[in-house]
Amino acid sequence: MAKMNPGFLNLKKSYLFIEIGKRVREYIAAHPDNKIIKMGIGDVTQPLAPVVVAAMKKAADEMGVKETFRGYEDSGKGYDFLREAVAGYYKSFGVTVSPEEVLISDGAKSDCGNIGDIFSENEDVVVTDPAYPVYVDSNVMGGRTVHYVNSTEDNGFAAMPDESMKPGLIYLCSPNNPTGSVYTKEQLKVWVDYAIKNKSVIIFDAAYEAFISDETLPRSIFQIEGARKCAIEICSLSKTAGFTGTRCGYTVIPEELMLETPTGEEISFMQLWCRRQGSKFNGVSYPVQRAAEAVFTEEGYKQTRATIAYYMQNAKVMSETFDELGIKYTGGKNSPYIWFKCPDGMDSWTFFDKLLNEAEVVGTPGAGFGKNGDGWFRLTAFGTHENTVEAMQRVKKLLSK
Amino acid sequence: MAKMNPGFLNLKKSYLFIEIGKRVREYIAAHPDNKIIKMGIGDVTQPLAPVVVAAMKKAADEMGVKETFRGYEDSGKGYDFLREAVAGYYKSFGVTVSPEEVLISDGAKSDCGNIGDIFSENEDVVVTDPAYPVYVDSNVMGGRTVHYVNSTEDNGFAAMPDESMKPGLIYLCSPNNPTGSVYTKEQLKVWVDYAIKNKSVIIFDAAYEAFISDETLPRSIFQIEGARKCAIEICSLSKTAGFTGTRCGYTVIPEELMLETPTGEEISFMQLWCRRQGSKFNGVSYPVQRAAEAVFTEEGYKQTRATIAYYMQNAKVMSETFDELGIKYTGGKNSPYIWFKCPDGMDSWTFFDKLLNEAEVVGTPGAGFGKNGDGWFRLTAFGTHENTVEAMQRVKKLLSK
Repeated sequence: MAKMNPGFLNLKKSYLFIEIGKRVREYIAAHPDNKIIKMGIGDVTQPLAPVVVAAMKKAADEMGVKETFRGYEDSGKGYDFLREAVAGYYKSFGVTVSPEEVLISDGAKSDCGNIGDIFSENEDVVVTDPAYPVYVDSNVMGGRTVHYVNSTEDNGFAAMPDESMKPGLIYLCSPNNPTGSVYTKEQLKVWVDYAIKNKSVIIFDAAYEAFISDETLPRSIFQIEGARKCAIEICSLSKTAGFTGTRCGYTVIPEELMLETPTGEEISFMQLWCRRQGSKFNGVSYPVQRAAEAVFTEEGYKQTRATIAYYMQNAKVMSETFDELGIKYTGGKNSPYIWFKCPDGMDSWTFFDKLLNEAEVVGTPGAGFGKNGDGWFRLTAFGTHENTVEAMQRVKKLLSK
Repeated sequence: MAKMNPGFLNLKKSYLFIEIGKRVREYIAAHPDNKIIKMGIGDVTQPLAPVVVAAMKKAADEMGVKETFRGYEDSGKGYDFLREAVAGYYKSFGVTVSPEEVLISDGAKSDCGNIGDIFSENEDVVVTDPAYPVYVDSNVMGGRTVHYVNSTEDNGFAAMPDESMKPGLIYLCSPNNPTGSVYTKEQLKVWVDYAIKNKSVIIFDAAYEAFISDETLPRSIFQIEGARKCAIEICSLSKTAGFTGTRCGYTVIPEELMLETPTGEEISFMQLWCRRQGSKFNGVSYPVQRAAEAVFTEEGYKQTRATIAYYMQNAKVMSETFDELGIKYTGGKNSPYIWFKCPDGMDSWTFFDKLLNEAEVVGTPGAGFGKNGDGWFRLTAFGTHENTVEAMQRVKKLLSK
């Protein structure tokens, strides 16, 4: 019988959100009339911006007319109009990237998961603990060894390099999922210097950059000197513009970024990735790319930032609640996540069950993101304002007992 | 420096269509005022069906309203409405698959390219020669050894199993790209029996099934007894409904299909694939899934089949031309491709240049699909009727000289 990829046996049994879904379904089945408030999976709740909907509909109409119909996108890298819009967006906060360095994807998860394809399977990987499970799982599937650097209460959940490790790949996420912490420019500079010294590539996940309001914090790794020699950046419109169900993101690959061939020569990272994509991907739906383009217009920016402000108002309600309760947390500022310490030394799955059973609020157990997550818990600010206020009242009632 | 995946060094230098694009661009630059007719890349030219456009616009509107907005699709496997529509479509030609066995993708290329992720890299692969380059390239990237079975003039470009090979994976495509040949039920039964005997998995690419009008020919491998034990089927709306720029497809994985673990146990193919997708894919855009659903409605079927009839009318013009010229070909019936023998023993890139330079018609050199393709040439029926007629007049003039 055809044999499976043995790497899959090293994966943890079940994906975090599947387990959460299971427990929630069981609770709902037993309490069908109760109102559960979900603050677990990091999904948005506010609709697409009007300009985005209009752009998608206009593009759909174009697809229905012979003269404006679009078939295969020639390059599969994204249409120029969108690549230019993304480059223009970077420029708006002071980062110069060329449209040719921007590749359009169907979301950060695909590119984060697939990027390993172009690396040797002997390259070690460094991931912060806790982290978004995709970084670990995709590399375990690829047969790579994953090492962890610790994000802990002591370092404000902002893990720094471990000089004893010499990784090929480093995954960083800032603002961080799940901890809500944001690297400072100084901290990212340490990572960039470390990557250059060790000739590693940093996969920088900037999916939450739009939530940064503190202008001293970096929104892109390319704000750090040297990053173009050692990093790619993966970003998404999922949270920036509510595209979780619409599916569009982008990846920036500096043209000077190189990998090493088995014979010690240099080969263009971009060239390898495009070869991979050319054989395994056919580009993003045209109407979706037009919808994405609208996000970067003046009106689109205004409309989507109004939604982000709405979510950050939720985050404020949440952080004020935890301030009031005297519970330690990170995030809630410059990030749509609040990451707090479970009360009374509870482990995070015990607290998950307590919060579900006693307050009917669903969150995400920190343990699902790595060992340093145990005893910690993630709530998201992506709910409606009404539900967030109600959930915080329930949490206050539960934890002030 | 981080090392590349050495498998990439075993890939052919440039992707077929990139080379074609280059030669065509050079020709156009030198002859900017001439009318080139493109029958090379297998892209469609007719617009999306009106019901499809309407469905996408309706879904876009839903995304703009809080009450009907959709975020992440829970499973990432596709919405039930679409999985059920696909299962219903299979039923319409006598094949029973459960909606749970249908997984929605962003197109056949992604699933064809990524499916190798769940197999051991030690499994050998069998591919017909000639074949769609993705089958070979994705496995070469994955470090697998690819063996070829020959599709030749003698067997009507319908390669059959080589009993000396014991592959883990077998890629079959029928109606075939590039040769336009279609396996009979008896031929596919031989492949299924061979796969069962060798415990191989057949990856069956059915992207062109909608072009089959001869009811005795199989449109799905699941019309063959035993196929559920040894095959998956990958299909796409790219050619069925003009979705090359809209991006939606589906893959059918029978629930009883198994792979072998390193310790010799059986593990569900579906479970492994869903684990892969759960970490590397986040589902297809909701408005695109609604557009796809519309294809399977009564009206959608009528509208999309009218477009297929239009393309098959082109195919008829083409096959009549080659009949008249007395040039040997396969395809053109039950397939949108005509695969013909280059005249005067020319190799296929020489003929490519001749056709481009002397008739200003772009086709695809058979050599780009494998060694047995040399001396052969592919033209597609996906152009407009006017262009197809004109191109055939030019071909007639060129080759009757």
